[in-house]
Formats: sequence, C-alpha cells, structure tokens
Amino acid sequence: MSMDVTFLGTGSAYPSPHRGASALVLRTEGECWLFDCGEGTQTQLMKSQLRAGRITKVFISHLHGDHLFGLPGLLCTVSLNTNCDPQQTLNCVDIYGPRGLRQFLRVTLGLTGSQLIFPYAVHELEPTTDQSPEEGQLSAEMTAEHGPPHPQEQPGRTISLDVSSDSYLLFEDKKFVVKAFRLFHRIPSFGFCVQEHDRPGRLKTELLKELGLKPGPLYGRLKAGDPVTLESGHVILPSEVLEEAIPGRKVCILGDCSSIVGEGPLMLCSGADLLVHEATLGNEQREKAVDHGHSTPEMAAAVARACCARRLVLYHFSQRYKPCSLQKEGDEDDVSELKRQAEDALQDSGIEVTLAEDFLTLPVPLKR
Amino acid sequence: MSMDVTFLGTGSAYPSPHRGASALVLRTEGECWLFDCGEGTQTQLMKSQLRAGRITKVFISHLHGDHLFGLPGLLCTVSLNTNCDPQQTLNCVDIYGPRGLRQFLRVTLGLTGSQLIFPYAVHELEPTTDQSPEEGQLSAEMTAEHGPPHPQEQPGRTISLDVSSDSYLLFEDKKFVVKAFRLFHRIPSFGFCVQEHDRPGRLKTELLKELGLKPGPLYGRLKAGDPVTLESGHVILPSEVLEEAIPGRKVCILGDCSSIVGEGPLMLCSGADLLVHEATLGNEQREKAVDHGHSTPEMAAAVARACCARRLVLYHFSQRYKPCSLQKEGDEDDVSELKRQAEDALQDSGIEVTLAEDFLTLPVPLKR
Ligand SMILES: [Zn+2]
Ligand SMILES: [Zn+2]
Ligand SMILES: [Zn+2]
Ligand SMILES: [Zn+2]
Repeated sequence: MSMDVTFLGTGSAYPSPHRGASALVLRTEGECWLFDCGEGTQTQLMKSQLRAGRITKVFISHLHGDHLFGLPGLLCTVSLNTNCDPQQTLNCVDIYGPRGLRQFLRVTLGLTGSQLIFPYAVHELEPTTDQSPEEGQLSAEMTAEHGPPHPQEQPGRTISLDVSSDSYLLFEDKKFVVKAFRLFHRIPSFGFCVQEHDRPGRLKTELLKELGLKPGPLYGRLKAGDPVTLESGHVILPSEVLEEAIPGRKVCILGDCSSIVGEGPLMLCSGADLLVHEATLGNEQREKAVDHGHSTPEMAAAVARACCARRLVLYHFSQRYKPCSLQKEGDEDDVSELKRQAEDALQDSGIEVTLAEDFLTLPVPLKR
Repeated sequence: MSMDVTFLGTGSAYPSPHRGASALVLRTEGECWLFDCGEGTQTQLMKSQLRAGRITKVFISHLHGDHLFGLPGLLCTVSLNTNCDPQQTLNCVDIYGPRGLRQFLRVTLGLTGSQLIFPYAVHELEPTTDQSPEEGQLSAEMTAEHGPPHPQEQPGRTISLDVSSDSYLLFEDKKFVVKAFRLFHRIPSFGFCVQEHDRPGRLKTELLKELGLKPGPLYGRLKAGDPVTLESGHVILPSEVLEEAIPGRKVCILGDCSSIVGEGPLMLCSGADLLVHEATLGNEQREKAVDHGHSTPEMAAAVARACCARRLVLYHFSQRYKPCSLQKEGDEDDVSELKRQAEDALQDSGIEVTLAEDFLTLPVPLKR
C-alpha cells in the first residue's frame, strides 16, 4: 500500500507568496488526511497534485489562525468538489482538534450561510492545564456551544486524556490506529501519531502444497492467524506457513511546540518512520523561539533522537526563511542552515534530516 | 488628491491560483480602505504594491465566505505590520458589514487566541427582509452576541436603514461621506457609495492683489467660504474670487446581487465615476446566475445605465473564466466576452466598460 506525505504550507505565523501557512496531507491509496489548515490551504491544494474531494479526515494541532483559518473555506470547496449522487449517502468528514473547534466551525459556517453536501463531526480533544501558560487556556464561556448546529453537523465525541497511556485514542480501523499526544505551546497544542497495523507475511505456497493444502478458503484462515486442521488430523499453525510479518509504518506529526508534555509523546513516536517537527527559528534564536512557544532545529533533533525516529522532517519556518529555490547568494537567513543545525545535533544517530518545502512529497516506504 | 482602486481578487465562490476571492482596496493619499476580504486576501496584498499596515477601514458587502474568510487572518497580519510605538495610541480600525459580523470576528479571533495591537469596532448594518429569500436570513439566535468580547473590541454602532433616503449613513468626515444601500442576493447584501466632498476652487490671486488684498489669513477665510470686508468698507464675496469648485469624485462598489432593492441604490450611485458591479456569468446563463443570486454583464450594464455612471467595472467572475493573460486560443469561457456583452448593452450611452483583473489598479481622476 502506497503512503506519502505532501506539504501544502511550511511557513509560520501567516501565509506568504513564498510559503503557505501550515498544512500537510497524508495520503494512502487515494484517501487523504489533512493535518492543519492555515489560510490559503485550498489554493495550495489546487496547485498540488492532490484532489480536495479526496479529503476524508482533518486533524487540527491547535487553534492558532495559521493552522486553522483555511478550514471553513476548505470544507466549502471540498463540498463543491464532491460529486453528489442522490442515491448515495456521503460519508461523514471527521475532524479532530482541541476543544473550541466545534464552536469555531459552527459559527464560521453558520453565519456565512455555508452549505455542505456531506455531514461532518468535530471530535474535540480536552487539553490539560500543563499544555500552555494560563493565559493561553480558553475559558468555558469561550468554548460553550451556542447557537444552532450546522445542518450537516453530526454529534462529535469529547476525547479526554487516557492517563495510563498518556495519550488520546482518536480512532482505530482495520489499517490504522491514530492517537494524539500533548505538546506545550502558547495555547494547548497536540501531536498526532498515525500507526499502520502490522500485516501478516505472505503465505509460503510451495510449503502449503507440500503439506497437501490447495488454494482456497483455508489459505485465508491461515493468513488471518487461525490454525487449520487437515483431514489427516495434522494441525498447521500460521507461523509455520507465513513469511515474516510486514511491520506497520508510523508517521508522527507534531504541532507548534517548545516542548513535549508527559511520557506520551516519546512512547508514541518511538521508532517513527517520519517525525514531522517544527523548527521556527535557528539555534541562535533559541530564547526568542521558546518565548513564542516554538522550537529550534536542535530542539527538534533532541526529540527525534529521544524517540529513535528514522527521519526528522523540519517545517513551520519563520517567513524570513525563503525557500531554497528562491535563496540568493549572501541572503542572511538561509533555510538550509536549519538543516545543518539539526544534522549537527544528530551526528552518529543515523537519523536523516529533511527540510520540508511547499509541495514537497515524501514517500513513506515499507520497511523491508 | 490622488485616488485609485486596486483589485486584489476578482473570482467568485472560492479563491483559485488564477483569481483571488473578492477583495479590493480604495486608496487615497496613503490611507487604504478594504472592500470585502475573501480567503487569501492578505497574500494578495503582499503580492501587490499596497501595504497591509495602511488599512484603516474595512467594508464587508455580505457574509458569504468568499468575501469574508480572509478577514481574521488579515487583521492579524495588519497587526504584525503595524509599528507599535508605546507612546502612541493606535487608531481604531472601523469595520462595517451586515449583522452577524461582530460575532463572527469575536469568535474567530477569540478561539484562536489572536492578539491585535490596535482596537477595532464592528458597525453592523441591519438588513431588511426583502434583501434575500427567507432561508438566507440569519436568526436572532445565530447573531446573538455571546462570549466575552475580544480585548481590542470597541463598542460598535448598529445602523438601521434611513427610510427617507433609503440608505445607511456609515460615516462622514472632512473629505468623504460613505453610505450603504441594499441589494438582493441569496443572503442580505449591500453596496457602498464613497462620495468625496466638493472642494472650493483655487483663489484668483491676481484679482485679489488688484483688490488690494495681500496673501494672509483673509485668503483662508475666503477659501473657507466667508466674505471679507476691506478697510475701505468694500465687501469681497468668495464667489467673486474663487475659481469653480472641484466636484467630489464618487466610487460605488456593489456586493453580490441579482438586483438592487429600493430607490437608494440608483439615487446614491447617480453619476458615479466608477461603478464596480459583479458579473458572475455570461448573458447566456442569466437564469442560472439569477438562481444563485448573481448578475450577468447585461444586468450590470442596466444598473450602470440607470444611474448614468461614467465607467462600469465588472468583477466577481466565475472561476471558469481565466484571466485574459492565461486565456488560450479556443478556450471556451472567454472573459473578454463578458466585456463585449456589457458594451453591447451600453451602446450609445457613453459609459465605458472595464474588466477587473487581480492586481489591476484604476485611477479615479479629478473630473476637470
Ligand atoms: Zn504556527
Ligand atoms: Zn501556534
Ligand atoms: Zn461571492
Ligand atoms: Zn455571495
């Protein structure tokens, strides 16, 4: 199964003609999951190879405008790009994000008379008080749901921290389990861990034939992990006839942060194939970065090292850093310097570093 | 005094890489007034010659997302671009638009923790029930103000229709009077009339010298319209010594509409130097246009003719119409056909037609 990540915006604070505001898409076999949706994301989508109508789930790391202001417009445009077959009931678009997101969408879609042809549900993550300074926490008055729900709004869940695993279980299906974990920022922020399930190895068909088993339903039972008893009474165990399992891939995407919170982040991100981490400013501006709730390449590298990620991808760069393609000799703020800083911090770790750029697509290959 | 209009977005429904969503700027001597603010307006501003920090007033014609979704992000970026001199109190940014706009900004800025370094006030226009079908009207529940005001939100006015003039007086200062008028659309929509005051003509200085009056404070009194009595007892009337008054210019900008409502629009737009009117679809799609609350070039031309405008500017084109610069031989939807249709309808009227394009700047010259 193919899997890749496409960056639609890699700039911090606001969108510019050089860098879109935060947004990236994880794509697996035609389904697209959108992580963050800054203003202009729909236009960036149109410029990319991706199709807006394929977006089935949305994840919002935190409520800052540079990660959210594009969402109402994006939903409207997805709706315009969805073929409406009246015979067919359209799937619900699931939207995950911090408490307050449901009311944000209700008001923005409602007051603008925005019509959607599909239902949507907002599943809210309940932050804890140690994810931001006190002034960054929303009062109950602010997030209280008020006014009529949008005609397409379906009831959403409220997801609280599971203290034993220090994480939030967003959903699990046949292919994936997706969890969130806590980050520290000026306002509560989250990271997301997309874990593909391991898949059974291929059947050793030569061996099965030798054992006298012909292709048929019993093959399926073995592949599903069930033992099979032959007419002779001989029992075949799946482990005897299956090649090694194909390990699931793991992609972890962190929202804005100056640090992780609790044990959850490192446990969940352990061994990530791709760890996407912000690096808003260079190491030499660490104090300023931390003051604003952000990270430097060195700080991002420390997280990647602590969780033994295979690849660290940096994004969410200050707009002062032009994309490499527009960089001129002698420009002061050179984004490739951010890559060098992370590489310096990861010497001898074997962890590779990639700089994200708008429209960069990174494949997430199978491990073997 | 120089005066010009710059289009930042000329597309309908959503922003695309070819046409931004609705937004235009009226500029007079460094002050910028923004009319509508679709998603991506701040990026379009950065691409233009205009400066975000110069925006002092915002006018929203109606609450559809393609005219509004860019406003929260734009305010944040204007704030980042405003020099904060702690000695200086920053001017309040006045925002005018339909009922519901205040709550929209309160929620979008509030839930996202958006900080602004300047105060703002939202002055809401109270629509009448004949500006849209019933389903397009917002319930009191939807627009009820709820939740704490933004720390920078100042009290705004609620402006009701002045029945005698069939218009809404937004404000009047030394240079301008700005009024709004009613339009019919899927949701209540408004047009804006910016009327520059007439200015007194130049003093006939040769004549004044002959009369024995030397340059000084008396010149100012004459220019201000006051008569002056000489020592000889002779009275000089301003009309004797002033050249003809310089007539004020008038720019009228209409939001989305399939028709005007009441007497106000034609009275206010009478003799407009620039009449900016939407033309979403070509004449051959009139039924579809009207169904969606929109106009064709012929319909826009009829308004321009009825109010004897000097120049009709068409904008808000369906995204199917590519800009002229990207138009290829044989493309089906040719935007210049929209211009021809308006010109056909304006034959012998003397009214000129201009097609707006993103980043087009139109000067509004003095009349003589
Ligand atoms: Zn950010
Ligand atoms: Zn942030
Ligand atoms: Zn529109
Ligand atoms: Zn509209």
